[in-house]
Amino acid sequence: MKEQDQRWLRHAVQLSERAGIETSPNPRVGCVIIRDNQILGEGWTQPVGQAHAEVQALRDAQQRGHDVRGATAYVSLEPCSHFGRTPPCAFGLRDAGIARVVAAAGDANPLVSGKGFAILREAGIEVLAEPDPALAQQVREMNIGFFHRMETGLPWVRLKMAASLDGRTALPNGQSQWITGPDAREDGHRWRARADVILTGIGTVLADNPQLNVRGTDIPRQPPKWVIDSAFRTPLNSHVTQGAALTVIGASDNAQRLALQDAGVQTFLMPDPEGKVDLAAVVRALGKQQCNEVHVEAGAALSGALVDAGLVNEILLYMAPKFLGAGAGVLALPEMQHVSQARVWQITELAQIGPDIRLRCR
Amino acid sequence: MKEQDQRWLRHAVQLSERAGIETSPNPRVGCVIIRDNQILGEGWTQPVGQAHAEVQALRDAQQRGHDVRGATAYVSLEPCSHFGRTPPCAFGLRDAGIARVVAAAGDANPLVSGKGFAILREAGIEVLAEPDPALAQQVREMNIGFFHRMETGLPWVRLKMAASLDGRTALPNGQSQWITGPDAREDGHRWRARADVILTGIGTVLADNPQLNVRGTDIPRQPPKWVIDSAFRTPLNSHVTQGAALTVIGASDNAQRLALQDAGVQTFLMPDPEGKVDLAAVVRALGKQQCNEVHVEAGAALSGALVDAGLVNEILLYMAPKFLGAGAGVLALPEMQHVSQARVWQITELAQIGPDIRLRCR
Repeated sequence: MKEQDQRWLRHAVQLSERAGIETSPNPRVGCVIIRDNQILGEGWTQPVGQAHAEVQALRDAQQRGHDVRGATAYVSLEPCSHFGRTPPCAFGLRDAGIARVVAAAGDANPLVSGKGFAILREAGIEVLAEPDPALAQQVREMNIGFFHRMETGLPWVRLKMAASLDGRTALPNGQSQWITGPDAREDGHRWRARADVILTGIGTVLADNPQLNVRGTDIPRQPPKWVIDSAFRTPLNSHVTQGAALTVIGASDNAQRLALQDAGVQTFLMPDPEGKVDLAAVVRALGKQQCNEVHVEAGAALSGALVDAGLVNEILLYMAPKFLGAGAGVLALPEMQHVSQARVWQITELAQIGPDIRLRCR
Repeated sequence: MKEQDQRWLRHAVQLSERAGIETSPNPRVGCVIIRDNQILGEGWTQPVGQAHAEVQALRDAQQRGHDVRGATAYVSLEPCSHFGRTPPCAFGLRDAGIARVVAAAGDANPLVSGKGFAILREAGIEVLAEPDPALAQQVREMNIGFFHRMETGLPWVRLKMAASLDGRTALPNGQSQWITGPDAREDGHRWRARADVILTGIGTVLADNPQLNVRGTDIPRQPPKWVIDSAFRTPLNSHVTQGAALTVIGASDNAQRLALQDAGVQTFLMPDPEGKVDLAAVVRALGKQQCNEVHVEAGAALSGALVDAGLVNEILLYMAPKFLGAGAGVLALPEMQHVSQARVWQITELAQIGPDIRLRCR
């Protein structure tokens, strides 16, 4: 790849970072239009239903009074080819007279993948696709939930946990607040903020009465909350009923379900054959609702069940450098007979967050 | 500090790294003698009883045919001032006609601290002491056990543990082998290798029958082994009785103690008022034996007791990215009533070792 292409493609990827979570379920994309090493226009994905990055960049060039005919468009992701909430961006670039398109990554969306490039090539536009594997990977990571949902139909499920170095979340007497420090808690809120849904269990609602909202971070919208609650025990006066929309998923009908519905709470029945909530069905439902990233904060029982069912794509584990000895563990798993039965994760990131550490595993 | 001084002082510190653990109980020191930016001679501490770094450097200069009179000696640590196994190095530098001494760190040894510099200054030698706090810290870290023992009379106790991310070392059925991978085990052997003593408990000897020696690393000597064994239950045919010298510490006399002694095992009685082994007394005894670093590999009971007694200076924790759910924990500690009772450690290093992670905490 030419140095100039490398430079502007990186710039397009950087622009994509300006797009916020409110683009979801659309991916975060950046676009810059270049001629003679000069920026004619740049843009990034706007909140869902509004303009995509390419359209923004074309508008920006127009406002600056630049003619983009014959110019090169650098995009972080393959231009879309289908009529969704907005017309296809591939048409937009073609109709504007762009002569060349360089894209950091191909689209994971089966409705789009390769078709955006095909539309461009048919129009005689030169296309350079995924010239740098590292940049392609960076685009994928930034949109991990989108890519994963396009490939599997399921959201990317991220399980957040906080524990002592010996894996404890609470003492035998139940005492548990503030195991990790303020830096880790703040970092946790940033991960909550980028999620499309925050998922928890009735155990956590009853024990901790959490708000499950994003605090200490400027965000365009609070993520909706889903509670796994087999017997519909979520109290009407619990904090979780306040703020962003609440959905409660049970396994059998009862009067409290009606009371929750009357209070404006969305409810679903998703029982499994054992009368518990079918967790795989919940994850599938979230995928069908175009949810890209699910942030789970739950107790050992639900967290363990999700891990055991293979429904967790990423673990976000905060550990405080202390040892509690006895107490509640971080994950409740079926008893193993051999260490080799433990599913092995891969550490994708290791960081110090204030006095604590944060591990990301996949 | 002048750039030239900085350069050669760094060089002296680098030379000190060539000194191996076999210098113990002496610190690892490096020395380079410089005139007109040229190396006249260099040296580092030899195995205990042999030449110190300064003497080595002077000899090296002599062998190269250089006259060191009027030259500058850069040393990683203040030259010693007392007659120990070898004559004081401060005298050696003085008698050789060295005109200037630059030392990265002052000596922690109360027999030496400041006295080495005083001898030099009295002889009209210019002394520049600890000009760079970061280099001084590096010298201290390399000799952490020596510095700690000089300051407290006690060895630096490093507790090595390996666990899953949920702090488990074994399954409920006792199955436990190979929680961490080969890289972590190899790394663990390197830490064993630098210790003056490897300490374990009778529980580990009976359950795992470990060799407790250093494997996969070239070392000049196998560290001696100490076993905490209240009732002298160490079997004569256990692996720990083979190889390097074994010491067993009990709390009450019995026939097996005599059998162990007859087999050449050193034994001590160090009971506490409750009839267990007095762990603080064991650590004091190791200090009196000029032991700089103690490497502990033990089960949850002994590890927990050492931590609870405040006898552990550093934790070396390997964690495999897996979760075991139920099973034996990494540390047995008295039950706490409040999370704030947990003693908080500080993470001094965080590293990825193959697929596992390694934490160092103090």
